[in-house]
Amino acid sequence: MVAAALCVCIAPTAAGPGIPEIKAYLNGIDTPNMFGAPTLIVKIIGSIAAVSAGLDLGKEGPLVHIGSCIASLLGQGGSTRYHLTWKWLRYFKNDRDRRDLITCGSASGVCAAFRAPVGGVLFALEEIATWWRSALLWRSFFSTAVVVMVLRGFMEFCRSGHCGLFGKGGLIMFDVSDVTVSYHPMDLLPVVVIGIFGGFLGSLYNYLLHKVLRVYNLINEKGKLHKFLLSVSVSLITSCFLYSLPFLAPCTPCDPSISEPCPTTGRTGNFKQFNCPPGHYNDMATILLSTNDDAVRNIFSTSTPSEFLTLSLIIAFLLYCFLGLVTFGIAVPSGLFLPIILMGSSLGRLLGLSMSQYTRIDQGLFAVLGAASLMAGSMRMTVSLCIIFLELTNNLLLLPMMMLVLLISKTVGDCFNPSIYEIILHLKGLPFLEAHAEPWLRNISVGNLIRAKEEIVSLSGVEKVSQVLAVLRNTTHNGFPVVDMPPISPVPELHGMVLRAHLLEVLEKRWFFRERRRSSEEEVTERFSSWDLAKRGRKIEDVVVSEEEEEMYIDLHPFTNMTPYTVMESMSVAKAVVLFRQVGLRHMLVMPKSQVAGGSPVVGILTRQDLIANNIKSAYPHLLRRGKSRHSLS
Amino acid sequence: MVAAALCVCIAPTAAGPGIPEIKAYLNGIDTPNMFGAPTLIVKIIGSIAAVSAGLDLGKEGPLVHIGSCIASLLGQGGSTRYHLTWKWLRYFKNDRDRRDLITCGSASGVCAAFRAPVGGVLFALEEIATWWRSALLWRSFFSTAVVVMVLRGFMEFCRSGHCGLFGKGGLIMFDVSDVTVSYHPMDLLPVVVIGIFGGFLGSLYNYLLHKVLRVYNLINEKGKLHKFLLSVSVSLITSCFLYSLPFLAPCTPCDPSISEPCPTTGRTGNFKQFNCPPGHYNDMATILLSTNDDAVRNIFSTSTPSEFLTLSLIIAFLLYCFLGLVTFGIAVPSGLFLPIILMGSSLGRLLGLSMSQYTRIDQGLFAVLGAASLMAGSMRMTVSLCIIFLELTNNLLLLPMMMLVLLISKTVGDCFNPSIYEIILHLKGLPFLEAHAEPWLRNISVGNLIRAKEEIVSLSGVEKVSQVLAVLRNTTHNGFPVVDMPPISPVPELHGMVLRAHLLEVLEKRWFFRERRRSSEEEVTERFSSWDLAKRGRKIEDVVVSEEEEEMYIDLHPFTNMTPYTVMESMSVAKAVVLFRQVGLRHMLVMPKSQVAGGSPVVGILTRQDLIANNIKSAYPHLLRRGKSRHSLS
Repeated sequence: MVAAALCVCIAPTAAGPGIPEIKAYLNGIDTPNMFGAPTLIVKIIGSIAAVSAGLDLGKEGPLVHIGSCIASLLGQGGSTRYHLTWKWLRYFKNDRDRRDLITCGSASGVCAAFRAPVGGVLFALEEIATWWRSALLWRSFFSTAVVVMVLRGFMEFCRSGHCGLFGKGGLIMFDVSDVTVSYHPMDLLPVVVIGIFGGFLGSLYNYLLHKVLRVYNLINEKGKLHKFLLSVSVSLITSCFLYSLPFLAPCTPCDPSISEPCPTTGRTGNFKQFNCPPGHYNDMATILLSTNDDAVRNIFSTSTPSEFLTLSLIIAFLLYCFLGLVTFGIAVPSGLFLPIILMGSSLGRLLGLSMSQYTRIDQGLFAVLGAASLMAGSMRMTVSLCIIFLELTNNLLLLPMMMLVLLISKTVGDCFNPSIYEIILHLKGLPFLEAHAEPWLRNISVGNLIRAKEEIVSLSGVEKVSQVLAVLRNTTHNGFPVVDMPPISPVPELHGMVLRAHLLEVLEKRWFFRERRRSSEEEVTERFSSWDLAKRGRKIEDVVVSEEEEEMYIDLHPFTNMTPYTVMESMSVAKAVVLFRQVGLRHMLVMPKSQVAGGSPVVGILTRQDLIANNIKSAYPHLLRRGKSRHSLS
Repeated sequence: MVAAALCVCIAPTAAGPGIPEIKAYLNGIDTPNMFGAPTLIVKIIGSIAAVSAGLDLGKEGPLVHIGSCIASLLGQGGSTRYHLTWKWLRYFKNDRDRRDLITCGSASGVCAAFRAPVGGVLFALEEIATWWRSALLWRSFFSTAVVVMVLRGFMEFCRSGHCGLFGKGGLIMFDVSDVTVSYHPMDLLPVVVIGIFGGFLGSLYNYLLHKVLRVYNLINEKGKLHKFLLSVSVSLITSCFLYSLPFLAPCTPCDPSISEPCPTTGRTGNFKQFNCPPGHYNDMATILLSTNDDAVRNIFSTSTPSEFLTLSLIIAFLLYCFLGLVTFGIAVPSGLFLPIILMGSSLGRLLGLSMSQYTRIDQGLFAVLGAASLMAGSMRMTVSLCIIFLELTNNLLLLPMMMLVLLISKTVGDCFNPSIYEIILHLKGLPFLEAHAEPWLRNISVGNLIRAKEEIVSLSGVEKVSQVLAVLRNTTHNGFPVVDMPPISPVPELHGMVLRAHLLEVLEKRWFFRERRRSSEEEVTERFSSWDLAKRGRKIEDVVVSEEEEEMYIDLHPFTNMTPYTVMESMSVAKAVVLFRQVGLRHMLVMPKSQVAGGSPVVGILTRQDLIANNIKSAYPHLLRRGKSRHSLS
């Protein structure tokens, strides 16, 4: 209830994992209020509340988001709204450094969640980041190294046991290194079977989760109370199931050959007594009545082939599937990793039990492979999952099997639908730029797109204040081409592009001239510093200009980016998309193929929204048809 | 002698590691004869010969090159010269797929060398590749997975021992997993010391190797015999040292508490008897009179704190430093990994011995950390080295220490000079495009560059055969702008860019018209297929055209890339470099800022060579000065 109330009332962006939004941010899409201080605080408290309520969700996604929030606040120099700013941090106050910091923050989040430093770096690289360079690789490596040192330090400090369960297991969360993995050709078959099952069920999970999220969206739109009640009822249902289902399981007598105490005496352990007589344990209680971390540890437990009954595993698997589907969309901070690991490990152990007479692979390893395979089937990562599981389980000899499982289940999953994060991105309507343009975009030229769009709004090099105000008020564009018109230039000539934020800054500072003239360099530098132009977040509604001032002029030349990236109108959209994404643009100017005397030197301006394949498909169906017919001709 | 003779006479490109050239190829620089069948065969035989001669070099670099050669031959559809072509492989016969295949090949090479599948992928990502995308990540992951399966299969087959030493140690080459790593604050200091030493000595090694390679270049230029004799004399010196130095070491009595047979009875082992009486061993013979792999294994050996004497380790370290410097540049296939690991591990063990009373870290771990630190100090990789060492040693708990060492030694090394591969690239004069443009390039516009270059050579849309021939004969450019002149177009208009290879193909097929006219689509498709235009390697000298034909015309329109990437002449060189590298261009057209009536619609064409910072510095010192003065003004 605390988690849901906070998420509903204070920071709705703190609900969910946050990973898709971080991915979108690093692709160039800024979701409002995603990285603010309120989101951070709600995410921390909410995540603690949600996990301790026993909901079927993980702390991994939230930790990634928390890491990114901290990184982003550092990149802003602190929170301006709450007057917590550090002066020395202003050097990072630019888009690029902020993006780098957020990447490092998300890598640190994964590292903290799984105690997997290299896995964290690779997760950031494979799943989150859009632009990557070698310097960023080792910066994020550095930040995860610091995380792991700090973790180690705390564990050393908590060795005496006065921090509760923290630090249990050291840096390895789910150790299965005591099993010697021997390879026999016969073992290959079960591994392939797990991979196929994982890929198929993972994509089925993606499909069903998409449907559930759409239903939840309808409910959530009805108001805050509906949102809150939905979360609370899911929590109630979860508690009922977790407490009542173990009563269905029969009591199993303890196996005297196992050295672990049975039934379990402490808070953690493999053999929960629950409702059973002494000397017996309830295997379903072992799974369901533990923290999620402990449940995974119990299912991964090795050298205990007969610990779990088939019926218990089937019930656990079905329960986790149901809870995993209904829990993710509610308004609390939630991660996807742990629910899928829970589902996958019970699936793996089930498959292991059913194939136990054909293979000598340990049941615990089956659970690990099952978890990996369902993860790859749903999230479609390979290298980073491989390393994360390696760092979780500390068994390097499992590597070849793990790679095989991951590759098979990713391949199977890719046959059906995209990865879960892509589905969520699409559902949220974020205009994500993919690495590759769809093939049919090759048949449409940017000139076609431009002609189908509304007319271009351009400013002249020295512009009337009233005209600038009108343009800013009547459009929502963030960039405008600046064209020098006679008498400033003999023929119309493209000077460059000016940003809305800079125009607002000039209006705010009232840097107006009475006559239509160009300014000198000294006039500019005495009024504007680079810090002024780095400010963001002004609104046109806040600008008040007197009638007299409206008749004055602004010289836009000093604020114009004189060399924007340009393309010819004959260029294909596919090629333009490559340029747009690779160089990381926000606006792209389109130039005419040949200059007609007196014609405009710029045909149009393209933004991210114009280049998203789905937008083109829905907005300009006639272009698509023409593209298709041209395609069939060639 | 065999290795040197093969490298000198048949395939000079097979000498050395080949990694810098692969790196350059993936950056867009094609070194001739680098990936051919002769290079592959010489590399395989030469590498076997060189390693078995006991030279201080590794098989790792050559294996990476071998992997890339095989990949490249597959990408070409086999070797055309030796009539070994497979028809179905022609689908990969394009630059992009060939580049992907070579990346996968090099990842597989590292995987085969170190039995490190994930390390191989990361090595290819961090060190070798220039452009990277998610699909490539998992393709290379797939190829290393196949490598590791095949390796496993062979090991299973060789379990009975009839393949000699192959497969010893399973998938883990240098296992140190039997040591429990415990962390104490006091252990941090030795780790930091190793990092600093490694970084400093690594950059010193880079510096000295650069000097040695320059001397060797002078010797090698004198002729094949000099080259051959140099290699043979280095081999002789190596053999003399390796055999004679162990006589200097005193005999050590065997420690009865150690379970390993002492002195060693088989071919491998930690306690070589050499010249000692029974019950004694010669510790220097253990290091020097083994294969390089075994030497590393012996130095890494754990729980043997007093096995090696300080004097022996000092001598071994100095010897490896000397041999590492003189061996690398000789004309045999050689890798850098193993020499540096040998140096680093003896350094680490030495440091460990000298700090043994202050720390409880095992001597074997000191050797591992020393090797990692010298590698990072010389090669400046982080994540990939971390994973490679993890996969080599199978001790996940070493990870935090390893990360710390790598980060410190990379940082220290970066203070002095660039990485060894960058030094070699520079020495070979390969025009490598760095990810970042140097800051002073921001002050030069591409217009300045173009005006300092010779005049642009452009062709008109329908061009006379004699003119095309003259242009191809008198220039070495690979691309020419095509400008439509009156009467084809009312005003001069840029149509696009045509490639030399396509012009040669048209000349070869004699697709000439008697009159100055444009062709129809049918005329083109009936004569040219896309396979024709994918051909490479024709020379203008082979084209014979009669005098009558020289008076005829070629329509260049069908062969013109109508939408080349263009930049304005006012754009800064730094921005142009970003575009050039990110989109992966070979030619970039420069457009005039404003169109003058009747003026040329294209100002110039820039290639990779024009955009390399050093070339600009040496060719146009006046631009640099102007740039500087302008910079000091602003």
